[in-house]
Amino acid sequence: MSKKYLPILDWSKDYNRSLFISDFVAAIIVTIMLIPQSLAYALLAGLPAEVGLYASMLPLIAYTIFGTSRFLSVGPVAVVSLMTAAAVGNFALQNTAEYLAIAVALAWISGGILIVMGLLRLGIMANFLSHPVISGFITASGLIIAASQLKHIFGIESSGHNLFDIIQNLITLSEQTHLPTALLGISTLLFLLWVRKYFKPLLLKLGLSDFLADIIAKAGPVLAVIATISITWLYDLESLGVKIVGEVPTGLPGLQLPQFDSELWQQLFISALLISIVGFVESVSVAQTLAAKRRQRISPDQELIGLGASSIASAASGGFPVTGGFSRSVVNFDAGAATPAAGAFTAIGIALAAIFLTPLIYFLPKATLAATIIVAVLSLVDFQAIKRTWKYSHNDFIAMLATIVLTLLEGVEIGILTGVGLSLLLYLYRTSKPHSAIVGRVPGTEHFRNVDRFDVETCKRILTLRVDESLYFANARYLEDLIYEQVASNPELKHFILMCPAVNLIDASALESLEAINHRLKDSGVTFYLSEVKGPVMDQIKRSEFLMELTGQVYLSQFDAWQELCEKEKKAQLELS
Amino acid sequence: MSKKYLPILDWSKDYNRSLFISDFVAAIIVTIMLIPQSLAYALLAGLPAEVGLYASMLPLIAYTIFGTSRFLSVGPVAVVSLMTAAAVGNFALQNTAEYLAIAVALAWISGGILIVMGLLRLGIMANFLSHPVISGFITASGLIIAASQLKHIFGIESSGHNLFDIIQNLITLSEQTHLPTALLGISTLLFLLWVRKYFKPLLLKLGLSDFLADIIAKAGPVLAVIATISITWLYDLESLGVKIVGEVPTGLPGLQLPQFDSELWQQLFISALLISIVGFVESVSVAQTLAAKRRQRISPDQELIGLGASSIASAASGGFPVTGGFSRSVVNFDAGAATPAAGAFTAIGIALAAIFLTPLIYFLPKATLAATIIVAVLSLVDFQAIKRTWKYSHNDFIAMLATIVLTLLEGVEIGILTGVGLSLLLYLYRTSKPHSAIVGRVPGTEHFRNVDRFDVETCKRILTLRVDESLYFANARYLEDLIYEQVASNPELKHFILMCPAVNLIDASALESLEAINHRLKDSGVTFYLSEVKGPVMDQIKRSEFLMELTGQVYLSQFDAWQELCEKEKKAQLELS
Repeated sequence: MSKKYLPILDWSKDYNRSLFISDFVAAIIVTIMLIPQSLAYALLAGLPAEVGLYASMLPLIAYTIFGTSRFLSVGPVAVVSLMTAAAVGNFALQNTAEYLAIAVALAWISGGILIVMGLLRLGIMANFLSHPVISGFITASGLIIAASQLKHIFGIESSGHNLFDIIQNLITLSEQTHLPTALLGISTLLFLLWVRKYFKPLLLKLGLSDFLADIIAKAGPVLAVIATISITWLYDLESLGVKIVGEVPTGLPGLQLPQFDSELWQQLFISALLISIVGFVESVSVAQTLAAKRRQRISPDQELIGLGASSIASAASGGFPVTGGFSRSVVNFDAGAATPAAGAFTAIGIALAAIFLTPLIYFLPKATLAATIIVAVLSLVDFQAIKRTWKYSHNDFIAMLATIVLTLLEGVEIGILTGVGLSLLLYLYRTSKPHSAIVGRVPGTEHFRNVDRFDVETCKRILTLRVDESLYFANARYLEDLIYEQVASNPELKHFILMCPAVNLIDASALESLEAINHRLKDSGVTFYLSEVKGPVMDQIKRSEFLMELTGQVYLSQFDAWQELCEKEKKAQLELS
Repeated sequence: MSKKYLPILDWSKDYNRSLFISDFVAAIIVTIMLIPQSLAYALLAGLPAEVGLYASMLPLIAYTIFGTSRFLSVGPVAVVSLMTAAAVGNFALQNTAEYLAIAVALAWISGGILIVMGLLRLGIMANFLSHPVISGFITASGLIIAASQLKHIFGIESSGHNLFDIIQNLITLSEQTHLPTALLGISTLLFLLWVRKYFKPLLLKLGLSDFLADIIAKAGPVLAVIATISITWLYDLESLGVKIVGEVPTGLPGLQLPQFDSELWQQLFISALLISIVGFVESVSVAQTLAAKRRQRISPDQELIGLGASSIASAASGGFPVTGGFSRSVVNFDAGAATPAAGAFTAIGIALAAIFLTPLIYFLPKATLAATIIVAVLSLVDFQAIKRTWKYSHNDFIAMLATIVLTLLEGVEIGILTGVGLSLLLYLYRTSKPHSAIVGRVPGTEHFRNVDRFDVETCKRILTLRVDESLYFANARYLEDLIYEQVASNPELKHFILMCPAVNLIDASALESLEAINHRLKDSGVTFYLSEVKGPVMDQIKRSEFLMELTGQVYLSQFDAWQELCEKEKKAQLELS
């Protein structure tokens, strides 16, 4: 039992020196990469830079204990930081302390939700986020994040809640552009874009190994950080008006208990739920991709507990909601991490940074962080996916487009809720008119086929409708309509057979529809039969009174039904003549 | 085209004297029944009594023109009146005029929604209300309505928004009970209950025909109205403090245009949508039941237009939202109505009543109307349905119970929204873990069956998974998990076949899952195949790049796949040995 919830017990017993070395090397590389990223995402969430560091220590330890992926690296990530900013932005707040308190509360609630979902084995809830919706959401979030950082690049004091606001404000205020900041920001941006694309090939040409070239190229942001800190310090750019990170408290965060405020927590619940689910879906798909490369498995339900514990650990150390990040996990994997211990070592690395490096961060320009964010999130924007989805399925495309448009115009929460709601409605709409066919007998066989497509035997007084979908509330009334239409247009009809070989479920609504059909057919003088009902469905129907009221009967096979009713009708015809 | 939207053109051309007489007789009977009912439902909605009459004239004319049911009688009904009261109750209002203005706005919006849904052929939207949810909602509404009327029966000034509030307030204030009112109220209630149960048998015993006995028994409320008006007038109960309807404006309502107020209309939209859908579902199921008895059909999409036109007609004449009522439609049917013209004649009857009978209504005690409402709505309460649903399906029961409990405790709107949401979630949950089986070959045949249930041939290096459900976002990730689990637990595996004979749909999420499975299996050194993919599904897959990336191929039949891969594996084994 304890082992089920503590995956660390699984791998730690075989821990050895060689695994330690792999993990240690990976941890150093990831730590270097994480320092600027953590600071940047804290600023994106609207929080003091040091909070990003706080959210990158204990959560990693918690995940090492409770997580099931060997490579996942948890901490602040772009989309969750944006969602945190949006959730906190719903409140009218006085100062940074209040803002931070709400971000911490979000982490507590989100962690709690994830753990409860994990204990209830509700990992499956993540399924309600369809791929097109999550992909559209991430693309739109990436665009909003990138746009929101432009003000730091140009040194403009601007704001805005949706893409158009942001861009319009930037244009209106463009004359405020602060030239030194813009110069620094744009060159950092160009440098990072260049590093992303051309640095690794260059290093390879210079004769470095693929592994080393890759790692150095990924350290591009660190180079930019070091360079811009140095320039800002050397040329005293602060006095020119370039905005810098400034004083960052040195040392480790204090631990804190949750400050339970029932009204605030209620107001934050939906935001926290959305953050939890989006974070979980992102994290699990990264973890699964990496696990598959080593033919390992992760347990989605235990992942909920691992990520929940991470968010709670973040909250307890004054941080904001965290989840498994894509880029850092890939770096961790590529750098050779072998067990979750790599995460714990990274946490130690970040802690050392928080103790020793914060004085150096003083001169870090905000424009540098903005540039790192922009380059990072632009890789999330995937216009190809929109085109692919349009080509593959118009229904999915509609849900995706609505998610993108509403996320851009109305914000992340309305965007994702609309996407989820719309994809559910479209799916129901799709199954609400199930495929069905009037069937007749293929002469000389026991097979029954669509009368419109095959040359089959039929009988004026007997009609068989085959329905190719489970019967449930979304299509129950459609089935009624379909059958009444058939009955109304066949005045000589005496026997109606519903053939159910593909019906996996008949829910209470569909059962009531079958009862209504039975009664109404009776009123019209038509007997109602079922055929080829699957075993489990039959078992369930037996728990109702439907079979007692059924005017006809249930035939095991359509052929039995056909034979018996044809026989009966032939006799009736003979008697009449 | 015009005929499609004007069903009156269909039946009016064959109209004749005999149909006229049938319709006319039915109209007289329905009119007598409708007068007290209309007044009562207006009071239930919190509106002046005469508004009930206004809502029972033009809407009937509109439905005669646009409706497709020959027997449906539209007007104020209990549940929609309660929902109107709840929607208007969301506003803090000064006086009756404001209250009425909002009720009228609700009718405009609801009518508009219904007509737009009708033109877009969205009758199918009603499917999202599952039977257990609507049945639970109506039972709970019936209980709330009955409880809310008790104050009139006992002459207490009380209020309350949910069942417990209402009952608690009644008990707290029970010492205020007004004895003469309570005496009158309780005796009317007992009389009506007696009439409902024993009057018809008595009349039959006295030798009346079944038809006449039925009609007279249904006129019970009218007898109660006449008797209590007489008593109140003769004994001057008003001076004793018995609350009466009082002055009712004589004459017909003036016509009015909508007063468009975009903020108000936005606030009312959700309420109006719920009223529209609940009213539509109720109305259509009554109309379908009655139509089936004559082997006629109604058109649900045209019904949306008919009911929308009725609500707009109600709004234009200063009334509140209306829909097709169960009891009045049954009376109309039983009384022999033959065409929708009966509705138009009823409208004339109500108009005459509004002109000539309003002075008589002055002395009508409110307790009488409350008693009529209570007796009418108690027939809506169906505890048997709760038991039946529990027995049939626990999932449906949960949705039903949540609807009942939340409607009783939190009000009609939250109740029905929760019910709809929960039934969707439960359905998705049910399909999110589709039935599947590892299959093997039945020796000597081309059939493949579940390895757990049949004695079949398998091969260590080939695994075939058959999945018995359409693949879509709710189960896409489950499928991934399932396959990774199989691959992780079969280290010798080389070929994985997904057998899809029952897959009717692969949406964009499932396609991405298949792509992910393909990549991850490739990373694990396993080749991925599909078999028995249906034609339309294959056509859709061809619009993506999946087939180009697929490491294996798509086999038309599982047997082909088996033969070819077994052959290959045998060869590989031979080469090794």
